[in-house]
Amino acid sequence: MPDAKPYYAVIFTSERTEIDDGYDAAAERMVELAAEQPGFLGVESVRQDGTGITVSYWESEEAIRNWKRHVKHLEAQRLGRERWYRRFRVRVARVEREYSLEVPSK
Amino acid sequence: MPDAKPYYAVIFTSERTEIDDGYDAAAERMVELAAEQPGFLGVESVRQDGTGITVSYWESEEAIRNWKRHVKHLEAQRLGRERWYRRFRVRVARVEREYSLEVPSK
Repeated sequence: MPDAKPYYAVIFTSERTEIDDGYDAAAERMVELAAEQPGFLGVESVRQDGTGITVSYWESEEAIRNWKRHVKHLEAQRLGRERWYRRFRVRVARVEREYSLEVPSK
Repeated sequence: MPDAKPYYAVIFTSERTEIDDGYDAAAERMVELAAEQPGFLGVESVRQDGTGITVSYWESEEAIRNWKRHVKHLEAQRLGRERWYRRFRVRVARVEREYSLEVPSK
């Protein structure tokens, strides 16, 4: 999409603690809730051996700020800091260009 | 790092075929080779059930272009298209801001 409208990616990389305590259900709920927010474009998430990368896509920085401040998301963020994550990093990045390949036959 | 120099993230999301055929060794070699390139800042990579997210970080778009054109990388890209990936998407994004948490005690 060379001339598409610019959009934003939130790159969330994390390392989990050993504490489960509702993590999976909360993570799933947050994805569902994020998808309902204005300006949400999509999300991709992978976890392997306690290391996770989640990238969510948004129409604008304002949409990202609003989601960050959502009351249910704030509660999940608090539990994340207190229980679920050993460390994490959040990067907000503007997507400048992209390309893709799809091979339906493979 | 609110006032740090801006840098770039390459978000590579992919779905693998069933074909192994040297994939793991090639992927490992590409990470090693990328790390030797000028302007390389780091890489994070996670794969789960055939879905992968790799994010590499670079000082500039020029560094990204140079790595994209590296002769050994071009060969790996060809094999990726022909054998290893059912689909993939590459997004080049400028990191606007970031924050992180580290809990050494957990």
